[in-house]
Amino acid sequence: MAYLNEHYLKLKAGYLFPEIARRVNAFTETHADLAKKVIRCGIGDVTEPLPGAAIAAMHRAIDELVRRETFRGYGPEQGYEFLREAIAEKDYRRRGIAIDKDEVFVSDGSKCDCGNILDIFGHQNRIAIMDPVYPVYVDTNVMAGHTGVDDGSGAYTGLVYLPCNKENDFVAAIPAEPVNLIYLCYPNNPTGTVATREQLTAWVNYALRVGAIILFDAAYEAYITDPAIPHSIYEIPGATGCAIEFRSFSKNGGFTGVRCAFTVMPKSLSAQTACGEKKPLHPLWNRRFATKFNGVSYPVQRAAEALYTEAGESQILKLIHHYLGNARILADALRGSGLDVFGGINAPYIWVKAPRGYSSWEVFDKILAEIQVVITPGSGFGKQGEGYFRVSAFNSRENAEEVAERFLKLVWADRADAN
Amino acid sequence: MAYLNEHYLKLKAGYLFPEIARRVNAFTETHADLAKKVIRCGIGDVTEPLPGAAIAAMHRAIDELVRRETFRGYGPEQGYEFLREAIAEKDYRRRGIAIDKDEVFVSDGSKCDCGNILDIFGHQNRIAIMDPVYPVYVDTNVMAGHTGVDDGSGAYTGLVYLPCNKENDFVAAIPAEPVNLIYLCYPNNPTGTVATREQLTAWVNYALRVGAIILFDAAYEAYITDPAIPHSIYEIPGATGCAIEFRSFSKNGGFTGVRCAFTVMPKSLSAQTACGEKKPLHPLWNRRFATKFNGVSYPVQRAAEALYTEAGESQILKLIHHYLGNARILADALRGSGLDVFGGINAPYIWVKAPRGYSSWEVFDKILAEIQVVITPGSGFGKQGEGYFRVSAFNSRENAEEVAERFLKLVWADRADAN
Repeated sequence: MAYLNEHYLKLKAGYLFPEIARRVNAFTETHADLAKKVIRCGIGDVTEPLPGAAIAAMHRAIDELVRRETFRGYGPEQGYEFLREAIAEKDYRRRGIAIDKDEVFVSDGSKCDCGNILDIFGHQNRIAIMDPVYPVYVDTNVMAGHTGVDDGSGAYTGLVYLPCNKENDFVAAIPAEPVNLIYLCYPNNPTGTVATREQLTAWVNYALRVGAIILFDAAYEAYITDPAIPHSIYEIPGATGCAIEFRSFSKNGGFTGVRCAFTVMPKSLSAQTACGEKKPLHPLWNRRFATKFNGVSYPVQRAAEALYTEAGESQILKLIHHYLGNARILADALRGSGLDVFGGINAPYIWVKAPRGYSSWEVFDKILAEIQVVITPGSGFGKQGEGYFRVSAFNSRENAEEVAERFLKLVWADRADAN
Repeated sequence: MAYLNEHYLKLKAGYLFPEIARRVNAFTETHADLAKKVIRCGIGDVTEPLPGAAIAAMHRAIDELVRRETFRGYGPEQGYEFLREAIAEKDYRRRGIAIDKDEVFVSDGSKCDCGNILDIFGHQNRIAIMDPVYPVYVDTNVMAGHTGVDDGSGAYTGLVYLPCNKENDFVAAIPAEPVNLIYLCYPNNPTGTVATREQLTAWVNYALRVGAIILFDAAYEAYITDPAIPHSIYEIPGATGCAIEFRSFSKNGGFTGVRCAFTVMPKSLSAQTACGEKKPLHPLWNRRFATKFNGVSYPVQRAAEALYTEAGESQILKLIHHYLGNARILADALRGSGLDVFGGINAPYIWVKAPRGYSSWEVFDKILAEIQVVITPGSGFGKQGEGYFRVSAFNSRENAEEVAERFLKLVWADRADAN
């Protein structure tokens, strides 16, 4: 009989978002009168229409497919040159970072890239992951057999968790034990916080020293408003020797349903074989694309290209201002209700410390029951998230203002003794 | 220092299509006068415009993304219900096959699915692969560490190769040694041949008896003209207990650049853990989709849905008739020039036996030099392909007719003693 990959059996069945959906359904079923009032600030999905430049570009591209003279079949697996070049030029060289178009790999999503990147690495690597964390980093490592089982508290043995909390400004400290692969995500999901140039420099220097590879998830880069904060890990000297960067059009261009993202794999990156022979990673990633992928839909690549036009860039800026405006409104209200609030300035997420004595899920249930707002319990992102909750700013302005008003009505019991 | 996946280093650098491109470039550089005459019958890429129904559906879907009321962000990772249901109904239930929409997983390509499916299987499986074969099956197993090295003749140790040749009508015989995973592809790429109901029944019965899983690639199903030939492995009783089917919109709807495909993973399929515990595979594949994929672009899913409308179905039929018409013209010419010709009746590929004494690459070079036609050398698909070549029928009618005329001019030397 065929064998299955039993590492999958280690995964927890009750994944965060299904559990949220279950509780929301249970609430609306027992409180039919309140069901209509529910506003979701949970999942990180955009709500505003697609930029006009992207829409127009897609219509044009589709019309090319109507005629045999302009029809396009298989494109290059790694992406069309027009898009790879636009990305290399506008996202990197314009900022003084030397990235070549051949180092840009266009894909259908950062979630896919973050999981697929493990294909080119050996199973011997010791893997460091921030806590709290985007669950995909953890789960894909579990599936690849890089961990033991859940230790009962939601953490998998075999991973090196890097705590991120109020005490370290939510930026992971360099671990005492040696690691080979390090997932960093800034602006951070779920905490909405950023890493400074100095903090990223420390990570790059560490990675260069020990030969580790940083997997840098910059999906929320467009939300950075503070001019001192790096938009790319490659703004740090030496980073092209130790970092792979993941970017997406989901959260800037609103492409969550259109699907386009990219990975930057510098040609200068190397890793070793079991015998210690050093080899470049670029050919491996290139081979993975050629063998296990067939490129992103042509009209979608044209839409992504259009985001780099003058019109596209100004339309993106408007979207970012809209969501960050929501974030400010929501953060102010949460602060006004007496809570400790982080993030939301350079990111569309607000990370909130629940009052002492409340668990993340208790807060979830209370906020749903009392003001019919859906948030995300911080404990769903890892042990360090316990006692926090995440509020997403992806919403209409009207909803954000309504939620803000409701947040101000929250009353927190004095549970000082409970903890 | 980080470790790389050194199984990638076992892959042959000179992959088939890059080598073809290199030889074509070398020829056109030294024969500038003939460069314009080159016609490609190599790669299996469609050439005709996209069906009007798909075009219209994409335009409509894009216009939904312009307004916040109809905007769609993240869709279900496994595909929208409208498409999963259309597939289950039109491709299966209409043919009397009980497949539920939850068993259909919509993806961006069969190439991806054929590679990704290995994620949910254990590394202990013994893997059977047809020879000649679509190289992706082999290469993804090499990358996953399921093979040894290339044995020097183009075959990897550790795989069970199933020879398909003139003697067995290009349908693999059931192996003497036990195997756990079996790749079958019918209508076949590269040979263009099909498997009969009896032959597929023998495979299904074998798989059920030993508990093996058949990975059935039916990407060319739409080209079947013989009413006796099954379109789906699930037409064979018992197959939902032993087979996963891969389908694509690339070769019927011409979606090679638009990107949409699907996998059918019946809920009744099981595999075992190392300890012999039997578990269903559906939850694993579902979890893979949820964790490592984010769904196909919304407008693309609407385009695929439109292929199942009355208009879409009749437009597909026209495309199929066009390509099969080319195949007939090309096959007749090849036969007319004295060659032994297979396939091309229920598939867009023609598989040709070169005259005795010619290797596949010798034929490639001769045909390119003498009549400026690019074919694919059979040896690129495996050891059993040596001495054969593949001609693709994906072309304009004009090109097909021109190539046919040129084929008739070919003169083959008598090399009867050479072999």
